[in-house]
Amino acid sequence: MKRRAKTDEQSILDRLRKRSPTVLPRSSEAALRMGIGDDAAVWRPRTGYETILTCDWFLEGTHFLADRHTPEMIAHKSLARAVSDVAAMGGQPRCFLFSLALPSARTGEWLDNFVFALRTASRNMNCPLAGGDTTLRDEILINITAVGECRRGRAILRSGAKPGDAIFVTGRLGEAEYGLRLLQSNQKGVDTGNRLRKHLFPEPRLGVGLWLANHELATAMMDLSDGLSSDLPKLCEASGVGAHIEERALSCVKLNDQDLGKFDPTELALHGGDDYELLFTVAKKNVRTIPKKIARVPITRIGEITAEKRIVLTRKHNITTNLENKGWDPFR
Amino acid sequence: MKRRAKTDEQSILDRLRKRSPTVLPRSSEAALRMGIGDDAAVWRPRTGYETILTCDWFLEGTHFLADRHTPEMIAHKSLARAVSDVAAMGGQPRCFLFSLALPSARTGEWLDNFVFALRTASRNMNCPLAGGDTTLRDEILINITAVGECRRGRAILRSGAKPGDAIFVTGRLGEAEYGLRLLQSNQKGVDTGNRLRKHLFPEPRLGVGLWLANHELATAMMDLSDGLSSDLPKLCEASGVGAHIEERALSCVKLNDQDLGKFDPTELALHGGDDYELLFTVAKKNVRTIPKKIARVPITRIGEITAEKRIVLTRKHNITTNLENKGWDPFR
Repeated sequence: MKRRAKTDEQSILDRLRKRSPTVLPRSSEAALRMGIGDDAAVWRPRTGYETILTCDWFLEGTHFLADRHTPEMIAHKSLARAVSDVAAMGGQPRCFLFSLALPSARTGEWLDNFVFALRTASRNMNCPLAGGDTTLRDEILINITAVGECRRGRAILRSGAKPGDAIFVTGRLGEAEYGLRLLQSNQKGVDTGNRLRKHLFPEPRLGVGLWLANHELATAMMDLSDGLSSDLPKLCEASGVGAHIEERALSCVKLNDQDLGKFDPTELALHGGDDYELLFTVAKKNVRTIPKKIARVPITRIGEITAEKRIVLTRKHNITTNLENKGWDPFR
Repeated sequence: MKRRAKTDEQSILDRLRKRSPTVLPRSSEAALRMGIGDDAAVWRPRTGYETILTCDWFLEGTHFLADRHTPEMIAHKSLARAVSDVAAMGGQPRCFLFSLALPSARTGEWLDNFVFALRTASRNMNCPLAGGDTTLRDEILINITAVGECRRGRAILRSGAKPGDAIFVTGRLGEAEYGLRLLQSNQKGVDTGNRLRKHLFPEPRLGVGLWLANHELATAMMDLSDGLSSDLPKLCEASGVGAHIEERALSCVKLNDQDLGKFDPTELALHGGDDYELLFTVAKKNVRTIPKKIARVPITRIGEITAEKRIVLTRKHNITTNLENKGWDPFR
């Protein structure tokens, strides 16, 4: 029999707040003068730093399926998505606000598992919970605001790319889309193993973002949340430039043997969303200073920024086409 | 015929961002180095200040009804609720993040009206839009994060009340609940006029909160969002104290003549939510320095903090009872 959970608003926030004493590093904790339990959180910014602010929806039916995705995945990914935007500015996460609406049927064991996983994610991403809002609802709704910091003037914007800059990405593209498609086509009992990892538990590239900000090497940066073909045009538009991508240079998802022929790794890499890898540009003179790995994450040069404002793709046999925007847009 | 609206995500954010050049004071705008259009907003905190962070749901069906409430009301109240939490800390609003999910049928005229009203509210509350997230959904979902500032160490928490402190509130209590009940019982054509104002367009008590913080006069403070009988126990629990309220001292909603006998102003004042007035405590020695009005808002002394941890109400004929918690809790 399941125990009856305390379900008033304060007790839910209390469960979220509860944690072992050694969970978070001093630097993050000390900055939070007052967290959950008051009208608002009070947070002390560091002198010489600017504050990074970003918020993200994570909604049942839109961003996840409550019958396919575990509370562990939902907790991790909701926080990872928001923290990835901090990484994309070259910042360090400092704290997050957490808004949760959920059905009363999920206030027991489901919520316990969710809270445990959110605390684990918070610890792993070095980002303590500062406050939140909870309410009852017929579906699970999540909104997360991540707060980060970067040294004054060091935030890496989308708007700084110049013609001639080299274009880089972290990791392999299309891995999350590969996992999603496997999950969608999954029959009970099929072991999809590690191939789902990136779809379920993406890792914000905080180490890479911070390294690039500290070395002042990236002229522009953003995270790949909607897919390269959808996100690269946003970076180019913000910078007033175009881009030229080489298909053979792309670092594509590696398919398992049994999936060869079922999926096209290049299509997954070009249009698949949810990878949360970083896309960044580097001035030509600095290209050599970019190592093959940053913070243990492989870095791949995939093309070049151009003055002409269009996105061009050179296919494998030197056929050049415009790169169609087929990534994710919630309004399409 | 309605014009066809541009409905991709970026264009919705663009419409939210668009504003006349003189809309916001320099101090707020200058602090926002980078708003909508990047992965995150970059905001420059003031030296010697702490950051106040708070988030609030505002959901169709839970907090408003799309067929009863106009986009103007929804825009204003969603921001007012979040900004009220900044007021309750004694802070000044600096910027806000705005997450919106809405049905495609509302991306046309409804969204235009909503955006116009949100910009008006943003201007009135001195709180520019810093960023956001938008997506399609079958119902209107709103989450707002308000960011404010207060001088270091000056935030007024819930936890500072001491036995003997006097208890004060701003404005009249129960006005929002009165408006809500009128709206619920409304028949078409009935003019409910100004009686709905507080329910539809509550005003965060920023001037009062700031005055109290600057004069270091409040020992504890919170805003009344769930109703006095629900919120006062929260302040008392945070402070480890109890309270004694005098019914005859309460500043209750004034009913229109035609509503006399239909509603009980005392019940509305004790249990009605959504007023967004401030509840604060002042050390006995400082009670005389509290003026009758602060920032043009009437201030009323309604009782006293006690050492005994219960909430006692003295009724009009000196009958003393425990104050039952009958305010709003989303999980009840």
